[in-house]
Amino acid sequence: MQEKTFALKGNIIYTPECGKLELHPHSYLVCEDGKVAGIFDGLPRRWQGIRVEDYGDKLILPGLVDLHVHASQYAYRGLGMDMELLDWLECNAFPEESRFADLSYARRAYGIFTDALTRSATTRACIFATLHRPAALVLMEQLEQAGLPCYVGKVNMDRNSPDILRETTEQSLEETRLWLEQSRAFTLVRPMLTPRFIPSCTDELMAGLGRLQREFGTAMQSHLSENLSEIRWVSELCPDTRFYGEAYARAGLFGGDCPTVMAHCVWSGEEERALMKENGVFIAHCPQSNINVSSGIAPVKNYLKEGQKVGLGSDVAGGAHLSIFRAMTDAIQSSKLRWRLVDQDTPALTLPEAFYMATKGGGAFFGKVGSFEPGYDFDAVVMDDAELPTTRDCTLAERLERVVYLSDGRPCAKYAAGKRLF
Amino acid sequence: MQEKTFALKGNIIYTPECGKLELHPHSYLVCEDGKVAGIFDGLPRRWQGIRVEDYGDKLILPGLVDLHVHASQYAYRGLGMDMELLDWLECNAFPEESRFADLSYARRAYGIFTDALTRSATTRACIFATLHRPAALVLMEQLEQAGLPCYVGKVNMDRNSPDILRETTEQSLEETRLWLEQSRAFTLVRPMLTPRFIPSCTDELMAGLGRLQREFGTAMQSHLSENLSEIRWVSELCPDTRFYGEAYARAGLFGGDCPTVMAHCVWSGEEERALMKENGVFIAHCPQSNINVSSGIAPVKNYLKEGQKVGLGSDVAGGAHLSIFRAMTDAIQSSKLRWRLVDQDTPALTLPEAFYMATKGGGAFFGKVGSFEPGYDFDAVVMDDAELPTTRDCTLAERLERVVYLSDGRPCAKYAAGKRLF
Repeated sequence: MQEKTFALKGNIIYTPECGKLELHPHSYLVCEDGKVAGIFDGLPRRWQGIRVEDYGDKLILPGLVDLHVHASQYAYRGLGMDMELLDWLECNAFPEESRFADLSYARRAYGIFTDALTRSATTRACIFATLHRPAALVLMEQLEQAGLPCYVGKVNMDRNSPDILRETTEQSLEETRLWLEQSRAFTLVRPMLTPRFIPSCTDELMAGLGRLQREFGTAMQSHLSENLSEIRWVSELCPDTRFYGEAYARAGLFGGDCPTVMAHCVWSGEEERALMKENGVFIAHCPQSNINVSSGIAPVKNYLKEGQKVGLGSDVAGGAHLSIFRAMTDAIQSSKLRWRLVDQDTPALTLPEAFYMATKGGGAFFGKVGSFEPGYDFDAVVMDDAELPTTRDCTLAERLERVVYLSDGRPCAKYAAGKRLF
Repeated sequence: MQEKTFALKGNIIYTPECGKLELHPHSYLVCEDGKVAGIFDGLPRRWQGIRVEDYGDKLILPGLVDLHVHASQYAYRGLGMDMELLDWLECNAFPEESRFADLSYARRAYGIFTDALTRSATTRACIFATLHRPAALVLMEQLEQAGLPCYVGKVNMDRNSPDILRETTEQSLEETRLWLEQSRAFTLVRPMLTPRFIPSCTDELMAGLGRLQREFGTAMQSHLSENLSEIRWVSELCPDTRFYGEAYARAGLFGGDCPTVMAHCVWSGEEERALMKENGVFIAHCPQSNINVSSGIAPVKNYLKEGQKVGLGSDVAGGAHLSIFRAMTDAIQSSKLRWRLVDQDTPALTLPEAFYMATKGGGAFFGKVGSFEPGYDFDAVVMDDAELPTTRDCTLAERLERVVYLSDGRPCAKYAAGKRLF
């Protein structure tokens, strides 16, 4: 049995507020009962004798947070990237997702995903499964086993989908209710409502999911304002809404009491943004996916400035990479192009801002997660930059930058919710 | 002594023309006297008995070509990426480059670069050293030793540079002449003239380099039309030129008889493009660097369409990654954003087009390089995609796409100019 109180020693870096780095060279990070107790130059007397894991000169960072990823698509990431969104969904995503009706296939494909997520620096994620309830439960079991405190969504879709990947409205609601009940078996992994996006969900289904949310108090995730043709389509499907987000809001599924995260928000207008802010809806910024499927560049710097809640998403397999370090550099790079090509009044994102979104920004969706301030859940990864030779004496902030830009994204040790995973 | 005639067996992929993939599953690629002899389903009778290296189900690709990389900047790639170009040059590039006056430093820093280039899938590169002749020779020695048939340039700069990194015009020309003579010692590695860019080189220096080129017949590399403020600066420095490229052309240093490559060309106008095409100037497209220093997105698809010679460059350390696989995906991704944000009449680059630029497109700078057509120099890399698990039965083209997007860029075997490097 692992002790619940212990300390890590090393170079500790985190960000308590957007744009600001806290750097603690050769310090102790104490975990008490699964929570961060504090950072100290020397181990305080009250913890003398606890186990200290000494990581020498390595970097200790908060576990990274992925606010948007499709587990069912991981095994075929990096394929069909020359296609546009709708072709890609038809040729890649939909046929492959239909295979999750077969539980042995689901076990194998989700196994590949869970292995990769385990080895990555990500400790928390909001994950799309498929519409298949039994397969979603398989994924939840695997994540629970791996010690990854994630949200998982059984997907709902009852229209505009191929026959092999569509439920009736009734089925969808019944299966979701059953799945929410069965999900009570898990302690670490939690369910979240997951209407795929408005084009896949009838008004009736959305209303039913709204009722389920009020009954179960479940978190919720979906897609929002990803690309212009999708937005036009939604306005045709829901002629009585003024903006895309309202199609969620009128079903009662747009933030408020239950944590809600919307992926993309590349083209959200003023009214949508105002409502997101009012309701505390999280934005999952997925820069690589937005580039791969030619959606555009979300105005993330503006979102941060106006006080939206923003985290990063890999959006595998729209994005090809599971690494949230990669998502950080993709976010910075696409914000530079946005400055250059779209809006020279808005400067690019900085590394500390991207690091914030990847940790505390996205972590807030899970509660007190993503920081090393006292009382936060103890999620940490240890990064070894010795494999990245340089001739320069780097500061800690520079070493962080190099790890973000250059490392393969795999920590040498990982802790989630106070437990060591490897 | 290694035989000069042998065969590789495996899944062979190359591109004989832009946009077209040649796929040869489980075939033999024969090397005869350092050149490609052909691809065959079975080993023809005339080569019975030669050594066959059987790579099973792995992929065999032409070695990749990097048309623009700063060896002296490799050891500090991924640092200072939040700065803009001029700040970055002042804080990062210039102080670090000045350290190459110290030969023991040069040996160490270039050693890190040569190791990384050796392990990568790149077999040929056009490389900037620094202005220090002895250090440039150290780099050439290391590359020769490693078996990498690259071009290396001792940099010229006699104005608008810090005192620690500036030559007099005379010094610059004398050192260059001496260096060109000393470079005759190498058989695999070749020198190329490398005026840093117009702002660093007086008209007198450029004219002198032009004379050296006519005397020695040396290849040449530089930077061109990278960003808008640089272009304005050049028009101030050279008020009698109509466009940036003319400042090279009037010194006789803009293509023609000697192979010439210009990095970036993000903002080249019609006249410049016409002259590049007329003179056969190569364009080194460096998408990641153009993003990192906020230059913009070069219209590469248009360059290909109008018949320019185009290859890819990592531009380390403006780019943080040496991998030309990464440059391929960066090129595709930024062309998608260009389509979305700048010019909806020009579709995005495709994977076969990016693969062409990374192999035969850039390879043409070196002669018959970058293809598996008979008579081409035998440069090949073997990629193992077994580490990229998938649930899908992929075609060869799909496997190539996954290697490009997902692999760590390191081949399991590598051949350059008919010789196995590992």
